[in-house]
Amino acid sequence: MHEHSIAIVGASGYSGLELTRYAARHPRLRLVSLYSDRWAQEAAGDRLPLGGPAAALRYSALADAASTQAEIAFLATPAEVSLELGPKLLARGLRVVDLSGAFRLEDASLYPAWYGFTHGQAAALAEARYGLPELERERLRGARLVSNPGCYATATALALAPLVKSGLVAAEGIAVSAMSGVSGAGRKASEDYSFCEVDEDLRAYRLARHQHVPEIEQTVRRFAGRCGPISFTPHLVPIRRGILATCALRLLPGASAAALQSAWNGAYAGEPFVRLLAADKVAVKDVVRTNRAHLGLAVDERAGAAVAVSAIDNLTKGAAGQAVQALNCAMGWDETLGLDLLGG
Amino acid sequence: MHEHSIAIVGASGYSGLELTRYAARHPRLRLVSLYSDRWAQEAAGDRLPLGGPAAALRYSALADAASTQAEIAFLATPAEVSLELGPKLLARGLRVVDLSGAFRLEDASLYPAWYGFTHGQAAALAEARYGLPELERERLRGARLVSNPGCYATATALALAPLVKSGLVAAEGIAVSAMSGVSGAGRKASEDYSFCEVDEDLRAYRLARHQHVPEIEQTVRRFAGRCGPISFTPHLVPIRRGILATCALRLLPGASAAALQSAWNGAYAGEPFVRLLAADKVAVKDVVRTNRAHLGLAVDERAGAAVAVSAIDNLTKGAAGQAVQALNCAMGWDETLGLDLLGG
Amino acid sequence: MHEHSIAIVGASGYSGLELTRYAARHPRLRLVSLYSDRWAQEAAGDRLPLGGPAAALRYSALADAASTQAEIAFLATPAEVSLELGPKLLARGLRVVDLSGAFRLEDASLYPAWYGFTHGQAAALAEARYGLPELERERLRGARLVSNPGCYATATALALAPLVKSGLVAAEGIAVSAMSGVSGAGRKASEDYSFCEVDEDLRAYRLARHQHVPEIEQTVRRFAGRCGPISFTPHLVPIRRGILATCALRLLPGASAAALQSAWNGAYAGEPFVRLLAADKVAVKDVVRTNRAHLGLAVDERAGAAVAVSAIDNLTKGAAGQAVQALNCAMGWDETLGLDLLGG
Amino acid sequence: MHEHSIAIVGASGYSGLELTRYAARHPRLRLVSLYSDRWAQEAAGDRLPLGGPAAALRYSALADAASTQAEIAFLATPAEVSLELGPKLLARGLRVVDLSGAFRLEDASLYPAWYGFTHGQAAALAEARYGLPELERERLRGARLVSNPGCYATATALALAPLVKSGLVAAEGIAVSAMSGVSGAGRKASEDYSFCEVDEDLRAYRLARHQHVPEIEQTVRRFAGRCGPISFTPHLVPIRRGILATCALRLLPGASAAALQSAWNGAYAGEPFVRLLAADKVAVKDVVRTNRAHLGLAVDERAGAAVAVSAIDNLTKGAAGQAVQALNCAMGWDETLGLDLLGG
Repeated sequence: MHEHSIAIVGASGYSGLELTRYAARHPRLRLVSLYSDRWAQEAAGDRLPLGGPAAALRYSALADAASTQAEIAFLATPAEVSLELGPKLLARGLRVVDLSGAFRLEDASLYPAWYGFTHGQAAALAEARYGLPELERERLRGARLVSNPGCYATATALALAPLVKSGLVAAEGIAVSAMSGVSGAGRKASEDYSFCEVDEDLRAYRLARHQHVPEIEQTVRRFAGRCGPISFTPHLVPIRRGILATCALRLLPGASAAALQSAWNGAYAGEPFVRLLAADKVAVKDVVRTNRAHLGLAVDERAGAAVAVSAIDNLTKGAAGQAVQALNCAMGWDETLGLDLLGG
Repeated sequence: MHEHSIAIVGASGYSGLELTRYAARHPRLRLVSLYSDRWAQEAAGDRLPLGGPAAALRYSALADAASTQAEIAFLATPAEVSLELGPKLLARGLRVVDLSGAFRLEDASLYPAWYGFTHGQAAALAEARYGLPELERERLRGARLVSNPGCYATATALALAPLVKSGLVAAEGIAVSAMSGVSGAGRKASEDYSFCEVDEDLRAYRLARHQHVPEIEQTVRRFAGRCGPISFTPHLVPIRRGILATCALRLLPGASAAALQSAWNGAYAGEPFVRLLAADKVAVKDVVRTNRAHLGLAVDERAGAAVAVSAIDNLTKGAAGQAVQALNCAMGWDETLGLDLLGG
Repeated sequence: MHEHSIAIVGASGYSGLELTRYAARHPRLRLVSLYSDRWAQEAAGDRLPLGGPAAALRYSALADAASTQAEIAFLATPAEVSLELGPKLLARGLRVVDLSGAFRLEDASLYPAWYGFTHGQAAALAEARYGLPELERERLRGARLVSNPGCYATATALALAPLVKSGLVAAEGIAVSAMSGVSGAGRKASEDYSFCEVDEDLRAYRLARHQHVPEIEQTVRRFAGRCGPISFTPHLVPIRRGILATCALRLLPGASAAALQSAWNGAYAGEPFVRLLAADKVAVKDVVRTNRAHLGLAVDERAGAAVAVSAIDNLTKGAAGQAVQALNCAMGWDETLGLDLLGG
Repeated sequence: MHEHSIAIVGASGYSGLELTRYAARHPRLRLVSLYSDRWAQEAAGDRLPLGGPAAALRYSALADAASTQAEIAFLATPAEVSLELGPKLLARGLRVVDLSGAFRLEDASLYPAWYGFTHGQAAALAEARYGLPELERERLRGARLVSNPGCYATATALALAPLVKSGLVAAEGIAVSAMSGVSGAGRKASEDYSFCEVDEDLRAYRLARHQHVPEIEQTVRRFAGRCGPISFTPHLVPIRRGILATCALRLLPGASAAALQSAWNGAYAGEPFVRLLAADKVAVKDVVRTNRAHLGLAVDERAGAAVAVSAIDNLTKGAAGQAVQALNCAMGWDETLGLDLLGG
């Protein structure tokens, strides 16, 4: 069976490290290049517990990525880098899975406000396919540029999309409170993310202006046909990996716990990476180091509200695992290929 | 200056330990008795870094508390215990500050649904004064039975009450997502709260049925004149102490960030234990081991929503510190007496 | 290729959970039975992110383990349970890998002092082979009863054995300070191991009387020909998984950093699970969720001392992973089979 | 009663923050100046939960510290900064307590090897008095330049000095394994101390070359008359505050547990900040946020060894608290003044 050569650009960040693990054991991929300025010239086997030929690979400078000889490239780079590099690789005939936000928003005019830059790559943006297979698998088949969803966006959209589509909850007035482990902030030297500052602390950040907000709304709207502006509050909590998103919704007349649950059941029956549980059984520790999303629902009839809880690993289903899943989907492979990690 | 003798019942739990620290150095209190079955016969100085006469105090069995000789009693006992013990001590002429939920809900008929017991102490319930000085200081003067607020209730009501009263946000459709450190679950042998189960995990619990919900609604209603049923979702996060409550509100016409902020400013000007900050500057680590509440507000005009963030230490402003503050208030003392702890 | 049926007894403890993960994907094993009273009747797939037939397995009561129909049994049970169950299974023709201390000490007379029970299973004890392949691989071939090493014993003996054998350090006066994550204490309801008690704390325990001490001395003695009594101090630290053992040794005349390093190089050249690093590059986080041991050496000529640092995952190389490795060895399979976990 | 004006230089580091808390409530001190480039122009009350006049103090640039108008200065600055600034302040008549290593080693010739700089301040070095009151209180009386001990040095020397002096253990061959919380590394932007790198990890660092080693040996030698070179291994563990030092000693003929314990009892009877416990009762969490040292001893007759365990808070007894205690001592005040913090 033909193996496809793959390069990972930005291989020393937390997502890049996970991509390396998965690529190194994916049965249809052959990892050939790793790009990282931080570890340039070092061997991958000195940084990760790899076996086989992947262990001997040496990291190359990021600047060399544009001329990579692989057939496929995972970009775990900042949006500004992906925005330039992605189209270059596409032009050279590579298939690209980009983990940044560079190609996530269909409407380029949203970029200045939410990302702080003007988007000048209209053609690539038009070609990009959003990589959340559970919600839009069909659009991914054959995609040459996969735009991998954000971590908060994955957790939140999986919870919201079927509920909003059901018409049992209001598409307006949704309030999401989400908590993320510190790896979500990326790998960097920063006093703010030092152990002493983060440990034993909780805080909200980027209230009402996190860049995943328009992405969530766009995804829900594409799936459900509508979605009001969402009030979204992300929090930093002292864990390494994992996201828990708690979504408060207003019940519409006729809604019941059973009916809401049915909307999820219908949407996710047979999905290998989605598991529906009681809301208080959804826990980050059960999804960490897996590509799974655990979802739970609690209906509060007294308050006329429902709360949907969603847990993923921000580095797996929220980044590297989902990138592999979406690539599997784009290539027409079994979607679970290379993703049989057992958590823990 | 006369010192008042005080007893602490339930002195080995996490709130009881904090009460002991504060009582031992309060300038108007003389700690005379500590009740705890867990540490019966042990000296307090072997369990806490106390100096002075408090160090020599020995814990007595809980069963002896009913005949305590102190003038004042702090009850850090389960609601079922306080429900019986509180009235007995009142009858003997003691002043009582109860940290449980036994006397928090004015409407006794709410107890079966939210607390799982029928409330048979109507007289004590009628006499109880809710101990949240910032919101209802006047009712506390001279109180013989202070019912100390719940930790989530303190954090949430402080954030909500002035905003709802302002008429700038809807009193209906409020959704609160709150996170608590593990000490909120009390001290006990439990697999669920073992280090290996809690560390690196996040989860929601008691969705839509936490017993602090009716307490929050009652407090806001008393202060603001109205309050719809609140959707409240508590979460367990891997820190020892601290609560962060994130409250999503719907803006009413005419609301602006400045107007909402004014509502808080008006309510809390001059309050020694409340500090108003930008919402992303509110952090648990800045309030831990202090009696402070830090509050911050973010207005999301796009979504027609406001988010109020509130941080307290669940064991201090959410329990022992507030108990001291409320006692100070009931006794007519300076409210900050004995509460000059400097955090860290 | 024939698959061997395997049962896991004590499957809901932390080691049992890891064994389940590995057994479920080992290419030569077919997991057929899981025994655990805690989760009796539940499906394994509801407790672990398993796929395939393993997910449908239901936990059976521990009492049923004696009549298990598998060919091989992993015992992740307390020593007292293994002591009785192991010989029964052997008598029925099963191959047994026991993860407790029941069969680790060759000299049965040591059990009362170190384990608190009298050892009445002389035949099984005589048949047991200690499962530390790097130090005594040959004795393991064909073993019917593998006694899996203790976690501290693995980390410590791997560091010490080649150094003592080299004759470059004194076999007397060795002082070991070791730190373990909390999973080493097992899964249980206990106030002492609750999050609030363990988080942000450090402490030593079982000083001079940990049951792994005679095991370490026995292993080093078998490998090196001699070993004085070791001063061993274990510590509890707030991490979930992992052990770091820091071993202080006295240099003998003629010792040098290079000579000591050679002793390790000679012993571990080509070992797939041992990695030799600079002492300050040995970190628990690099071995967690792998079957690796990382070892590093620092020579302090000024003090006439050497310090050997050893890191493993207590649940993997210190328990379940090593059990699989030792079984592979006993069966004559490639020793790395089923152990290609990539850490993180 | 006259209050002495005091300045804190380096007030935004972790030790500087603690010094600020203590100085702000010390009954004989009046905090008048805070120097920190990080927070220049900010008010102290915006960074710390201070009340009273201290809250209004504004941080000044570090460069202004040389002309401070206070009577006393605490220097929480790097050794290179203290080395220059200390003598200038002394020359201007201030009393100085320096928390760095600049004036800790009597023998200036040790500085190049252990600190990496040549010590050019012989006069100040000669005047400096080492501030460990429990071991050398008398030398501190009236000191104009107090050199505050290092955190590891405090924990270790308190454990070792009386035992070595007793003649019951060898003064040679001592091996210390010590663990520190991350605040020991100071406040800084660094990938190595980021939450994701430190959390769930353990590692040793600066093996055989930590700069506190000659300081420990010097202190023990001054107190006990002798001390061989110590093998010292520090470790980084994922807690914010606290040190646990585990010291392995060789028993000499005639030593017994009771005799060793007597040596400690004799040395520390009546000490307000030292508490002697069973070795497995010594825990960091009991000393954090107090100025206490908890010491415990385990004798291992089988191994001919003793292990002394010592716990302190690196920022309190290991830094700011001890600085206050030593200043109290130098000034002839009650040594416990301003140090009645109650932990937690």
